[in-house]
Amino acid sequence: MKLFESKYDVIVVGGGHAGSEAAAAAANLGSHTLLITMSLQNIAQMSCNPAMGGIAKGQIVREIDALGGYSGIVTDLTAIQFKMLNKSKGPAMWSPRAQSDRMRFAEEWRMRLEQTDNLDMFQDSVNGLLFEGDQVVGVKTQLGLRIYAKTVIVTAGTFLNGKIHIGEKTFGGGRAGEGASTGITEDLVSKGFEAGRMKTGTPPRVDARSLDFSKMIEQPGDDVTSKFSYTNTKSLTKQRSCYMSYTSPEVHDLLREGFENSPMYTGRIKGIGPRYCPSIEDKIDRFSTKDRHQLFVEPEGWHTTEIYVNGFSTSLPHEVQYKALKKVAGFENVKFLRFGYAIEYDYFPPTQLQLTLETKLVKNLYFAGQINGTTGYEEAAAQGLMAGINAALKVRGDGPFILQRDEAYIGVLIDDLITKGTEEPYRMFTSRAEYRTLLRQDNADLRLTPRSYAIGLASRERMDRVEEKQKKTDLFIKFLKDTSVRPEDVNPILKEKKSAAVNQSMKMFKIASRPQLDFDDIRRFPKVEDFILANKIDREVLEQAEVHVKYSGYIEKEKNSADKLQRLENIKIPVNFDYKKIHSISFEAREKLSKIQPSTISQASRISGVSPSDVSVLLVYMGR
Amino acid sequence: MKLFESKYDVIVVGGGHAGSEAAAAAANLGSHTLLITMSLQNIAQMSCNPAMGGIAKGQIVREIDALGGYSGIVTDLTAIQFKMLNKSKGPAMWSPRAQSDRMRFAEEWRMRLEQTDNLDMFQDSVNGLLFEGDQVVGVKTQLGLRIYAKTVIVTAGTFLNGKIHIGEKTFGGGRAGEGASTGITEDLVSKGFEAGRMKTGTPPRVDARSLDFSKMIEQPGDDVTSKFSYTNTKSLTKQRSCYMSYTSPEVHDLLREGFENSPMYTGRIKGIGPRYCPSIEDKIDRFSTKDRHQLFVEPEGWHTTEIYVNGFSTSLPHEVQYKALKKVAGFENVKFLRFGYAIEYDYFPPTQLQLTLETKLVKNLYFAGQINGTTGYEEAAAQGLMAGINAALKVRGDGPFILQRDEAYIGVLIDDLITKGTEEPYRMFTSRAEYRTLLRQDNADLRLTPRSYAIGLASRERMDRVEEKQKKTDLFIKFLKDTSVRPEDVNPILKEKKSAAVNQSMKMFKIASRPQLDFDDIRRFPKVEDFILANKIDREVLEQAEVHVKYSGYIEKEKNSADKLQRLENIKIPVNFDYKKIHSISFEAREKLSKIQPSTISQASRISGVSPSDVSVLLVYMGR
Repeated sequence: MKLFESKYDVIVVGGGHAGSEAAAAAANLGSHTLLITMSLQNIAQMSCNPAMGGIAKGQIVREIDALGGYSGIVTDLTAIQFKMLNKSKGPAMWSPRAQSDRMRFAEEWRMRLEQTDNLDMFQDSVNGLLFEGDQVVGVKTQLGLRIYAKTVIVTAGTFLNGKIHIGEKTFGGGRAGEGASTGITEDLVSKGFEAGRMKTGTPPRVDARSLDFSKMIEQPGDDVTSKFSYTNTKSLTKQRSCYMSYTSPEVHDLLREGFENSPMYTGRIKGIGPRYCPSIEDKIDRFSTKDRHQLFVEPEGWHTTEIYVNGFSTSLPHEVQYKALKKVAGFENVKFLRFGYAIEYDYFPPTQLQLTLETKLVKNLYFAGQINGTTGYEEAAAQGLMAGINAALKVRGDGPFILQRDEAYIGVLIDDLITKGTEEPYRMFTSRAEYRTLLRQDNADLRLTPRSYAIGLASRERMDRVEEKQKKTDLFIKFLKDTSVRPEDVNPILKEKKSAAVNQSMKMFKIASRPQLDFDDIRRFPKVEDFILANKIDREVLEQAEVHVKYSGYIEKEKNSADKLQRLENIKIPVNFDYKKIHSISFEAREKLSKIQPSTISQASRISGVSPSDVSVLLVYMGR
Repeated sequence: MKLFESKYDVIVVGGGHAGSEAAAAAANLGSHTLLITMSLQNIAQMSCNPAMGGIAKGQIVREIDALGGYSGIVTDLTAIQFKMLNKSKGPAMWSPRAQSDRMRFAEEWRMRLEQTDNLDMFQDSVNGLLFEGDQVVGVKTQLGLRIYAKTVIVTAGTFLNGKIHIGEKTFGGGRAGEGASTGITEDLVSKGFEAGRMKTGTPPRVDARSLDFSKMIEQPGDDVTSKFSYTNTKSLTKQRSCYMSYTSPEVHDLLREGFENSPMYTGRIKGIGPRYCPSIEDKIDRFSTKDRHQLFVEPEGWHTTEIYVNGFSTSLPHEVQYKALKKVAGFENVKFLRFGYAIEYDYFPPTQLQLTLETKLVKNLYFAGQINGTTGYEEAAAQGLMAGINAALKVRGDGPFILQRDEAYIGVLIDDLITKGTEEPYRMFTSRAEYRTLLRQDNADLRLTPRSYAIGLASRERMDRVEEKQKKTDLFIKFLKDTSVRPEDVNPILKEKKSAAVNQSMKMFKIASRPQLDFDDIRRFPKVEDFILANKIDREVLEQAEVHVKYSGYIEKEKNSADKLQRLENIKIPVNFDYKKIHSISFEAREKLSKIQPSTISQASRISGVSPSDVSVLLVYMGR
């Protein structure tokens, strides 16, 4: 495919986390794809903190990996620290998180994209969309090119009419040092789209050589490191530590002095910021009784002296940032490399999208990432992947690829966006998922790789690994169910673990399910280690079996509940169903249903303002 | 030193090749130095071709290294190919050149700067200078900071009022994807500086996967690779090839079709471009009888598929770039990653500078790089290094550090700029040096490291290496002078090399000076290899000895001639000498001398318009 001669299958506008996953997925599904970015040198930049994963977000990265996306692999290859968060809680809560080498991360992504078949890249700035009737047919660029495509995915991040604020200074830009993008919003609004304004921010970056780490609390990585990808990437053997420090009442007082010149408080910033990733001024304002807040001092890579001051996001005047941060323990002699700033940008309320991330108003046009009102690399990457998949499937005339809420956090994410919309930057939490015991980080491959393999995205090699893992897990569970232990062999271990002794032989499975014992104890039972060795059972399989043995009760319960939901999910509502004719549902429900146009009864039931009795009426209409 | 609390010794504005060397040199000389750059992510970017060195430029890089700059080390560590150009000519012409991995080059530079003591870095855009009377005292920034310093070095590259052109499109910018810099020019003009406009350009970047290399001529690196730095960097063992292709009359015709929309030909570009690095449209216009031009197809790194099409620099409309390049052998299916473009920017005619690169009009203000009307990474880096050294020396109250024309290409470069000025982008050639036999790439360390060591920049370790090299060279030459060979031992070798036989024992030195023999032959003489082994004489020393043995005649001659010049160089002209009172010199000479204010009779003699008879009159006035 050549830029001027033919029509691409998919054009991806923007090369951030969303755009990179979208381009890779579409190309890997066989679509001739073009990724257009303002700067080829800034592909897959981590504009904010140098880390991937975290609570619920880590699960999303594992899901992306299970589906055949690149984020997990790139994270594994460029991590400088790994932690499994929430390890003390149940496995549903376990969340992998990695600190990344910022430069290597971007480099690795670019290299992978360059080596992806069917994928072209081009440096230019898209400043408009080309339409034919109710369809998008291509893009216009700053250089004056018109490039045509069957589908277009817009992943514009914070660039659409981006405006940067620090204190009383304001200037256009999509990121510090990079220009804003104009034209796309205007074209979309002219087509009838509703646009809004959001804001986000970033903290100062400082020079590690100016900090006194002895006054902070070291935060090393895990002793035994895990990883994100289900492929054969290696886990870390060497790591860099983060550090923790705290703000203080003195720091808060100094920050407050800047409020009168703050773009947040003088009303110059109108966009709504991320509730769960607030600026430091927000934190001291909203939680005025708290006399300290945590700051995480994160290195930006293996070799650089640049430090990301996580938790200190701010758009206060630069001298206020400086004066206040200097009062934090360890920062007495801090040298700033870059100041924190806030950025406002356009987004499009995501209720204007279908579950495929295609817009309702304009055919073949998809949105992914911050343009949909989300925040976070992981949320962006997940949407990019799904938009890329669905655009490619549409090009080849196949049905959509939609993940249900009981299948993936990605399903929860997109359903939430499409059904409920969002008025502030949306980020994922485990609490947003009804079935989080099902949506664990350890089983994303079992849940999702078969689905991705079915559409041709996940490779045969990935699928083989999944089948092998499932087979061995079943084998090991069967072994535990079939094999008995005698009291004399097991009671010493039980005594040691303060678990009740047994007085007759018993199946291992039954003992293994006791909460006092973990699988390191079970491995001390007779025959177990031999079985593990003989059958080459690895740590991943053991973990999988352990979760099954210990939590099968909960898992079964959630599965039943999910199945019930699935029945509602199976009751489709016809496209463009006319809710106005149903007078027996509330006015609010009629209005919301008309706007959202849910595709199933289940989705309808999740719309705020649609009551259970409204759902009953709908069920009658759908013939139940 | 902290951004807001104190006064820096040196502020460097800009983080390209000039700025990076300037900051490193000043900091390494003990000056508290601040490097301000618009983007910390773009430090030491190779904005143009991914290569360092070349004819005369390679010598400059070796000189920078000999003086303790970083360019040579960074090039060695990030090279993907090495060539010694002009190896078939005499050693004065040998010129090292390396292809670089563009990303690694910038990364390595940044890492080194981060690890340099006394050096702070800060991301912001300088938009004005602070003056007190006739001195600069600091800078103003986009964020509203005022940062004070004893000296300021401006290395603004192509950013001052930068304007990018492609076909009929024009937009502000300092490089593709990066904003222009405004304010500095305006402040300087208000102080009485004369500013001009120059232009430069860059070719398209294309996807290696779309090229057919079998239709091009492979250009591998040297079999035995050398390197740039005199330190213990390693030379390459693995390399990537470049390729060569040609334009054709068909390509030229296609390019000509775009002339009517070209910013060059419609008069929209007013700046003067680099004569020796012309755009492809310039080449086919100026050399209309040539029916083909070489294109060098250069990979941008170890892993990337991006290719730099060296020789095809252009600002023609994008569709013309595409149509024409497609007709080049091997480019039939070319995919563009970035289009070529031209960029216009402000420069300041360098006759406004002293030999230290300090401006004549404003004290403590230094310029280096493209702002002085030069082109080339090497020229920029050299000026940066010299400006950094001189700023630091001034801060500590020491005299200036000036290299003479017979000491270094860097001396030639700066003397040319200051004395002759330039109206088109200045690049170095060996022909610009009167004493190029002295200014070889192999002896830059012997020439310059002692001078740099004397001011405290080159390390003791470097100086030790130089002394060791000199000692061993002398030792080996003495051995050759002292040791005789018998006819029966040497005649077989002489016969093989078609050199006249000897009929009595003779000193090796005498035979070694014969042009038919090289030092690999001398090593076959009795005792030589044993001496080399016993005294641990390495390749560098052997080369040095060989040059001495073979070229000492030429070298002596140039030395004598340089000494004569030096006598004129030693005749100083007082600062602010009033030429108006000397009526016996020509009007033109009076005018030029008043403007340039040469510091020596020698410099005066090089000013165009100053005749030998004018020089004689001056000599009389200076008391000779």
